[in-house]
Amino acid sequence: MRENRVKTIWKKGGIVLAGSVNLDSPYLAELIAQVGFDSIIVDMQHAPLDYKGMLANLQAISTTPAIPIVRVPWNHPPLIMQVLDAGAYGVICPMVNSRADCQAFVDACYYAPKGMRSWGPIRGTLYGGPDYFEQANDTILPMIQIETIQAIERIDEILSVPGLGGIYFGPGDMSITLGLHPQKSYENPKLLNAVETAMKACRKHGVLAGIMTPNAEFAKQAIAWGAQLVTPGSDIGWIRAGSAKALADFRAFVPAS
Amino acid sequence: MRENRVKTIWKKGGIVLAGSVNLDSPYLAELIAQVGFDSIIVDMQHAPLDYKGMLANLQAISTTPAIPIVRVPWNHPPLIMQVLDAGAYGVICPMVNSRADCQAFVDACYYAPKGMRSWGPIRGTLYGGPDYFEQANDTILPMIQIETIQAIERIDEILSVPGLGGIYFGPGDMSITLGLHPQKSYENPKLLNAVETAMKACRKHGVLAGIMTPNAEFAKQAIAWGAQLVTPGSDIGWIRAGSAKALADFRAFVPAS
Amino acid sequence: MRENRVKTIWKKGGIVLAGSVNLDSPYLAELIAQVGFDSIIVDMQHAPLDYKGMLANLQAISTTPAIPIVRVPWNHPPLIMQVLDAGAYGVICPMVNSRADCQAFVDACYYAPKGMRSWGPIRGTLYGGPDYFEQANDTILPMIQIETIQAIERIDEILSVPGLGGIYFGPGDMSITLGLHPQKSYENPKLLNAVETAMKACRKHGVLAGIMTPNAEFAKQAIAWGAQLVTPGSDIGWIRAGSAKALADFRAFVPAS
Amino acid sequence: MRENRVKTIWKKGGIVLAGSVNLDSPYLAELIAQVGFDSIIVDMQHAPLDYKGMLANLQAISTTPAIPIVRVPWNHPPLIMQVLDAGAYGVICPMVNSRADCQAFVDACYYAPKGMRSWGPIRGTLYGGPDYFEQANDTILPMIQIETIQAIERIDEILSVPGLGGIYFGPGDMSITLGLHPQKSYENPKLLNAVETAMKACRKHGVLAGIMTPNAEFAKQAIAWGAQLVTPGSDIGWIRAGSAKALADFRAFVPAS
Amino acid sequence: MRENRVKTIWKKGGIVLAGSVNLDSPYLAELIAQVGFDSIIVDMQHAPLDYKGMLANLQAISTTPAIPIVRVPWNHPPLIMQVLDAGAYGVICPMVNSRADCQAFVDACYYAPKGMRSWGPIRGTLYGGPDYFEQANDTILPMIQIETIQAIERIDEILSVPGLGGIYFGPGDMSITLGLHPQKSYENPKLLNAVETAMKACRKHGVLAGIMTPNAEFAKQAIAWGAQLVTPGSDIGWIRAGSAKALADFRAFVPAS
Amino acid sequence: MRENRVKTIWKKGGIVLAGSVNLDSPYLAELIAQVGFDSIIVDMQHAPLDYKGMLANLQAISTTPAIPIVRVPWNHPPLIMQVLDAGAYGVICPMVNSRADCQAFVDACYYAPKGMRSWGPIRGTLYGGPDYFEQANDTILPMIQIETIQAIERIDEILSVPGLGGIYFGPGDMSITLGLHPQKSYENPKLLNAVETAMKACRKHGVLAGIMTPNAEFAKQAIAWGAQLVTPGSDIGWIRAGSAKALADFRAFVPAS
Repeated sequence: MRENRVKTIWKKGGIVLAGSVNLDSPYLAELIAQVGFDSIIVDMQHAPLDYKGMLANLQAISTTPAIPIVRVPWNHPPLIMQVLDAGAYGVICPMVNSRADCQAFVDACYYAPKGMRSWGPIRGTLYGGPDYFEQANDTILPMIQIETIQAIERIDEILSVPGLGGIYFGPGDMSITLGLHPQKSYENPKLLNAVETAMKACRKHGVLAGIMTPNAEFAKQAIAWGAQLVTPGSDIGWIRAGSAKALADFRAFVPAS
Repeated sequence: MRENRVKTIWKKGGIVLAGSVNLDSPYLAELIAQVGFDSIIVDMQHAPLDYKGMLANLQAISTTPAIPIVRVPWNHPPLIMQVLDAGAYGVICPMVNSRADCQAFVDACYYAPKGMRSWGPIRGTLYGGPDYFEQANDTILPMIQIETIQAIERIDEILSVPGLGGIYFGPGDMSITLGLHPQKSYENPKLLNAVETAMKACRKHGVLAGIMTPNAEFAKQAIAWGAQLVTPGSDIGWIRAGSAKALADFRAFVPAS
Repeated sequence: MRENRVKTIWKKGGIVLAGSVNLDSPYLAELIAQVGFDSIIVDMQHAPLDYKGMLANLQAISTTPAIPIVRVPWNHPPLIMQVLDAGAYGVICPMVNSRADCQAFVDACYYAPKGMRSWGPIRGTLYGGPDYFEQANDTILPMIQIETIQAIERIDEILSVPGLGGIYFGPGDMSITLGLHPQKSYENPKLLNAVETAMKACRKHGVLAGIMTPNAEFAKQAIAWGAQLVTPGSDIGWIRAGSAKALADFRAFVPAS
Repeated sequence: MRENRVKTIWKKGGIVLAGSVNLDSPYLAELIAQVGFDSIIVDMQHAPLDYKGMLANLQAISTTPAIPIVRVPWNHPPLIMQVLDAGAYGVICPMVNSRADCQAFVDACYYAPKGMRSWGPIRGTLYGGPDYFEQANDTILPMIQIETIQAIERIDEILSVPGLGGIYFGPGDMSITLGLHPQKSYENPKLLNAVETAMKACRKHGVLAGIMTPNAEFAKQAIAWGAQLVTPGSDIGWIRAGSAKALADFRAFVPAS
Repeated sequence: MRENRVKTIWKKGGIVLAGSVNLDSPYLAELIAQVGFDSIIVDMQHAPLDYKGMLANLQAISTTPAIPIVRVPWNHPPLIMQVLDAGAYGVICPMVNSRADCQAFVDACYYAPKGMRSWGPIRGTLYGGPDYFEQANDTILPMIQIETIQAIERIDEILSVPGLGGIYFGPGDMSITLGLHPQKSYENPKLLNAVETAMKACRKHGVLAGIMTPNAEFAKQAIAWGAQLVTPGSDIGWIRAGSAKALADFRAFVPAS
Repeated sequence: MRENRVKTIWKKGGIVLAGSVNLDSPYLAELIAQVGFDSIIVDMQHAPLDYKGMLANLQAISTTPAIPIVRVPWNHPPLIMQVLDAGAYGVICPMVNSRADCQAFVDACYYAPKGMRSWGPIRGTLYGGPDYFEQANDTILPMIQIETIQAIERIDEILSVPGLGGIYFGPGDMSITLGLHPQKSYENPKLLNAVETAMKACRKHGVLAGIMTPNAEFAKQAIAWGAQLVTPGSDIGWIRAGSAKALADFRAFVPAS
């Protein structure tokens, strides 16, 4: 089975740079995957992207060595199993706030006896290889989002669920549950405390410490606390920033009519 | 019928800033249109975009005041009529190299007796209004691409076709027919000469002088020669540049594994 | 943030006319929205419409002032959050039969501390505006369907859930749980009693009294009991009635062969 | 091979009632086809419908006995062949204004030696049957639109092209070339003269006299002159009329807010 | 309402041959349905197929007499109801491991008072007929997958849920919970014991004994134990085997370059 | 730029085995490409496949080393350019019957001064590499279909067009123009004579001798005459044969009910 380079980098002590793809344009996914990220996170939660678009994006990414991870919209077993069947090597589950939530998610990611995943990796074998059944339980990386104050409070019981692969800290929702603005609080000590707690807990429990990082300073801080997967940005963000800057640059010499 | 603000700006002597949308993601089109461009050019020629994607993009753009222009893949009457039926207010036809080419294109854009456009503006009336038939011939803006040396040589006979609305100079193809690289020749005098010739000919013939401008310096130069529609960039370009820069920024402090 | 005119009309004591769009044709959605309804209800429950079609329909509707409401197929948090992220200003949840059902639904519609909605309004900000986070909890209208006899029996405990915005009475399913035919019982006293009970309970609890109204007489009766949102029809209904009548009109002078 | 009932009805002297489907919703196509039209005309010219939508609509229609006819956007051989490959039993070609136009169209509809159609009826055999090759040239019905004054002037030379199956008179474009409004001239003598000329020429040349009929009166008149295929309406028309009437009916007792 | 021939064959003591369609190509579904299977099982669980693809496949299948059955990805009521609304005559629910699971599934398949299915069979009436409401509860066939050792242990309590129509034994997942390879254990006595137990229990409880049969020998054995629905194969399997054999056949005389 | 292995194999005197993909299912395309063909021919002519499906198939194929070739529906420059922009390394143009046809096709495949291809290889650079412009004219393989008796008569003048890369002999259409059945004449001397003539002419003119081969015997014969690209089959063929055989195998022990 094809190696899960995200796990390899992490196990070696390295840091994974994961680009984020939210759009329903497999051409775009291929273009971004070619840029050279270690991994691409395909988002199905806050994105104009359904199952078919996710599958197309995974195919596009598979033309490159970038390891595909999919964020599902919810802790819902059929969708978790379907993204794995489609060839995802990692799954990110949002809003995991208890040990029971985490256990249910992990169960959906593994074949028995480790879990209850149903057999049928229609594209998993195309991407992973013919020994998929034998290797899948050792290759797939189940990740949860730690993104509420409740999850921080229960971080040890959650992270100690056997089989959990890592976390993907969500600063936006965490900010809201801390009473902060989801997009303007990246320097707020309350949020940074939560980041520090989560990153350190991952090290303690031996799971990958991943985090959505809105900018380089935030990423550096998280890495200092142990983060090993950070995100340099997303397609929506690049389009928004790029188009606004381009218009402004031209408006500097072309007055509005 | 809704005003064609591209024509209005041009007639007043202003300059139109047109963003370019190439992707098959109407969400993206809506996001870009909201940034504030005067017009959005939806590309069907060199883009992963077919008729259905074009239509969806036009709907997305219509949530904003940006005037929709569509570049068709070819001087092929049914497609020209279909983008107009879909609500495009301008059409750009590539590779127009002779007066006959131009005449055929213009004929497809107008209802008789001015042309031979077929009746059935299914979405034109939704976007334009119930008096579409009465006003369409005065509202629609047919534009051609001047992008070969042959077209430059015949610029006067081409631009004098009655009903032609403007040009959209294509520096990439023009460079190739001049024996230059399509993406590395923006400062080459041969190319700039062709730009100057085309921009001035537009002024002479009273048609809109539009041009694809790969950067601000190129745009300023074209404006100096009379350009009144320039393009601050495209979705593909913003994604490509944004993702590459984001990765490089993070690689500066995260070594490759 | 853009005003939720459905709430405004209701608060002023007016009555909202909501057209219903069930089909996966954004062109059709745009056409219907232009007719002049106060609101358009996009149905994802009993309709050939998935997430992508719903999103396209919301974009199409956003070219007009009609306020978009989406009926989700189930009381399933990720889908509720996704339609809100897509720009819906109201959400209708079917089959809410208990206070617990209602509470779970309402929680999915609001950001903390009012609920547990996850951050990421990718199109919500495009439709609503940049102050989406600050205003969303005051703008979004969560509505439930009262459509079983059990729900009628528990109407007070259900409607008193804080944050509930309104109901959308479903006469079809209500008829079935009353032992009646879902499409032939609009004049049955049992059904009308349930309507009356529900409409009056809404007034008592200060929530919007909405109802699916199969015809004008039914709507008038519901309004007499307090309804403030009624539905003049749906795309499927108009097609079915219109095509059958057209064929019959022509068959009157063209015999079948 | 399955019988072409349009030809059968016509040959017996009967009149075909053809509903028109323009939308990209195969569910809708199935619903309309079930209403009982003799034939369904799927429009690819003035419709939000591309190849894939056309194919889906043909499949939907094939659940009923209605004979599928497709209007292509142009006299373009590959598209004509593709709709036939997809199982269309009739093809309508717009804007045929000369004998050469007509000959080129007819050639694309027949296998050699009668024409130059390319072999590959991928769905033609599913719909028609395994003896498709042997029967296709006798079963397929090529129809042209007579919709300009030029075509009326050359009606005899056009209609005498061997293999032509019929016409589909287009009153909208005909009105424009006559200097009339395309939607308000159905009682204009100039238009009616053209209708009469075309219908009678069809009888003379033994080809099916079809016509797009915007209302019953117009249809009756055309039938009086020989029409044998008329159209009781289209999906877009039924939606537009039905939604506007429904809103008006409710506005009669619900004032606008 | 159209007859459910799967039930008819079973009630008469016959055996249903069901082909399996997994792909998102309605053309392919139509082609396979025409081959002559009694029923087609459209898979939404381990397949590149979402709601829209399922609906298109059902339309394609409805051009033939093959009875449509859909396997949903999970015991999730809205999806179960949506496939029934789309015209499925049978539903297969995976991973039913307890009486409670089975009861919840069955409830979602029937209208009250037999269950809690919501009214709105948008395509059910097109496929089934206008008396859908009156006949649906007697026509629809709810089937569960018995595919874990837990389910075998509770087989009697599960199969005795009133309204259950049948099972669809899943040898792949059953093998995994038995500690076997999901694709290489078709002759393993542990698996065959489970098959025998399940098939006999179906006879005892009067429900249809269906089973996914990877080859003819396996099918014969299952039939000997009472199976009345077996599967000669699936589209993915035919493509995989056919393409590999074709390549090998040609490689026999064309050496690799 | 990535090597065109089809050209490499041919230049070395080897024989290319090309699988044919006709369906609009990129999952299927990926599965077939993984089987190990040297090249995959994606068909847009006689296939339920439009531009978007073609693009998705090319992405799917690009996860493997198989070289992508696309058959366009017609000798229509925009479509030829679009498949090249999408990353096709070869293009097959049907129905080329004269030197002028061939010249027009070849012109559309090359950048000036060799041809008139327009610049914009949006996915060509992703698949081929950043030096696409410099290498494309030497890498791309333009192929024509020789499939009429007229083409055979003019074979020398057609094949001598500079820049032509090869042919793809079409036995179906050739049979028809020879007065034979398109699917039952593979052993007919008239057809075989045409094959021999074409294969030998390719050798003479130094262009790749490709041919659609319905079975191994036909392929062996063509190879004996010089063929260097043959086709072991297509997805539609494998499905049709596989499903029919599977049903027959089961019917052998399960009587029809």
